Amino acid sequence: MEARIESVTVRVFKTLSWTVNDSDGHTHPGPELASEAAIVTVRDHDGAEGYSSCSAEALRPYVLDRYVRKVLTGEDAFLRERLWNRLYRMQRGSGGQLSDRAIGYIDQALWDLAGRKLNVPVWKMLGGARTKVPAYGSTMCGDDIEGGLKTPEDYGRFAEQLIAMGYSAIKLHTWMPPVPGAPDPDMDAAACAAVREAVGPDVPLMLDANHWYTRFQALKLGRALQELDYYWYEEPMEEASISSYRWLAEQLEIPVIGPESAPGRVHTRAEWISSGACDIMRVGANDTGGITPAIKIIHLADAYNMEAEVHGGGSGNLALLGAMENGRWYERGLLHPHFDYDRVPPHRNSIVDPLDAEGYVSLPERAGLGDDFNFDYVDANIVAGW
Amino acid sequence: MEARIESVTVRVFKTLSWTVNDSDGHTHPGPELASEAAIVTVRDHDGAEGYSSCSAEALRPYVLDRYVRKVLTGEDAFLRERLWNRLYRMQRGSGGQLSDRAIGYIDQALWDLAGRKLNVPVWKMLGGARTKVPAYGSTMCGDDIEGGLKTPEDYGRFAEQLIAMGYSAIKLHTWMPPVPGAPDPDMDAAACAAVREAVGPDVPLMLDANHWYTRFQALKLGRALQELDYYWYEEPMEEASISSYRWLAEQLEIPVIGPESAPGRVHTRAEWISSGACDIMRVGANDTGGITPAIKIIHLADAYNMEAEVHGGGSGNLALLGAMENGRWYERGLLHPHFDYDRVPPHRNSIVDPLDAEGYVSLPERAGLGDDFNFDYVDANIVAGW
Repeated sequence: MEARIESVTVRVFKTLSWTVNDSDGHTHPGPELASEAAIVTVRDHDGAEGYSSCSAEALRPYVLDRYVRKVLTGEDAFLRERLWNRLYRMQRGSGGQLSDRAIGYIDQALWDLAGRKLNVPVWKMLGGARTKVPAYGSTMCGDDIEGGLKTPEDYGRFAEQLIAMGYSAIKLHTWMPPVPGAPDPDMDAAACAAVREAVGPDVPLMLDANHWYTRFQALKLGRALQELDYYWYEEPMEEASISSYRWLAEQLEIPVIGPESAPGRVHTRAEWISSGACDIMRVGANDTGGITPAIKIIHLADAYNMEAEVHGGGSGNLALLGAMENGRWYERGLLHPHFDYDRVPPHRNSIVDPLDAEGYVSLPERAGLGDDFNFDYVDANIVAGW
Repeated sequence: MEARIESVTVRVFKTLSWTVNDSDGHTHPGPELASEAAIVTVRDHDGAEGYSSCSAEALRPYVLDRYVRKVLTGEDAFLRERLWNRLYRMQRGSGGQLSDRAIGYIDQALWDLAGRKLNVPVWKMLGGARTKVPAYGSTMCGDDIEGGLKTPEDYGRFAEQLIAMGYSAIKLHTWMPPVPGAPDPDMDAAACAAVREAVGPDVPLMLDANHWYTRFQALKLGRALQELDYYWYEEPMEEASISSYRWLAEQLEIPVIGPESAPGRVHTRAEWISSGACDIMRVGANDTGGITPAIKIIHLADAYNMEAEVHGGGSGNLALLGAMENGRWYERGLLHPHFDYDRVPPHRNSIVDPLDAEGYVSLPERAGLGDDFNFDYVDANIVAGW
């Protein structure tokens, strides 16, 4: 079985979205808007294809021509470890142009291609650990929208709705700039208290707050969370400072989870463990360059009896969750009272992560990563391609 | 794609061998002898099968009935991570009856089944890193056989032969009890010196000596090896003492490799890294319970920029080597002047690891692990089955 790579191409197409980004990049609900999305395709010489949603900017023509195609074209797509390492080594000289995200999209498309060629879901290629995974509801950041996530009481009411929808746990993202008054550990703690009050003592709750608090702000907020019996505390400070996280984790009983955004893939994460900087590892298919490096991070955490909780949703993260036992939840979101997460965008026939009545997401049985793209729609709405 | 496991069975059959074991269990060349070998088969409900060579004792009827069949029967064979974890948890209460070796044979048969069903080699399922791997010649232990491995000069002559055969590196196993006078660090050092003298300064050389030296014996031998510019130093002491290996590694410049035989799988190996007890990690498909845990160890080592060198030959270890960059060599052997490693035993149509003229072993293109069993021969020579 071989897959000689014939081409790597990107399609950018018009679709619809129902979210907007604020001046700091945070997502909030919005009106139905024409928007653009992109899919990268790795094509085998026999016509088989693998796909990944991607950022068109990350995989712009310069990046494909200068790095990706040079590494992939003519190579056997089943040599994922080799191709990933070659992209990784090219990254060093690229001055940041070949980003971890870019490598991650390519890696996920290679896994998708392999799964589709072999007619097997990626999580079963990796070695399945379970057939469904419980989901936590992950809120959007706080805002100043009436009836949205403007007040602690808004968070409390929304938490009740999420529990009614089947979610077995909830994670808050609270207020961040440019929301007036944010960030503020006391506002965060008030929202967390309102949610605990709303859902009662038995629902696991997590917080992902502002990422640039000082040590003392982070400690104060962490102490408030452990008083409220929160389950984990996520990224309250700049992650490049491992010492700060060790300082924090040593003083808190609530598990500190990380790193999520820190560069350096599995190597950085090994340092976090060796330094005692986290109690739970963070890992995502899109954060560190794809499934290939993410599974190494999961195995690293396993070596230290540590959970690796998966960051973000989507098919690549579901594949990881299907192949691991040392991580508990699928992060489903981002969610908001004014946003229908289950609405299927026109470039898909179905979403990859429907929630069942018990609050689980089933691992897809579809070959490859499990995305169900509507390619007729995509091809009828092309804006650009390369 | 699913594989509902219908049965797990063991066939024990007569075959031929050309080795004998001494009173301490070490392998030496011998006359052609009738011997017994065993294969475990995991059978899917659709008739597909996966195989692994195994020890009939490790997978005796008690072990299959009491542990393996209870976990596997009726389950989806693609859920390897789940099945491995269930066997591992059963192991604790088994009082050692369900050994790491036993779990490893089952795990390898599950990988073989998946590869055969998907028509892909296991190393490509994992994600290929290379298509061939350089081999080092790994000698049998020293002996008292004339023209064998009785003297340092014997080792030197044999090393010249191995280089002529294409091997690019050589590892010595030296004299161990019950060979008279063994173990002795000075004898070991003399053999190592004779080999360095024979092959010149450019050939990487390694030593795997007696495993029960004291700290000072191990240090003395290690210093001799680094004077001879040896590439690694393997298991000179009881591996349960991590502190001893840290003590040794701190004082030597030659890389210390390990652990190989220490129980505790990836968790023990993480402690070796955290403790600074080794410079190179040791990993094998048969040592820690199969491919599933071994790949975690390889990923753990990668997280610390450490090589994981694969212990022993065979199809499972080749699959690991095909899927990793952080390990250099295939261990081919055990070799001896009086033993033809390339002779095909009658229960195989071919060996899995032929050496090419440049000293490489190619990764098998055959689906699954790549073993080429002669099942007609096996079934015509059955001794027992369960």
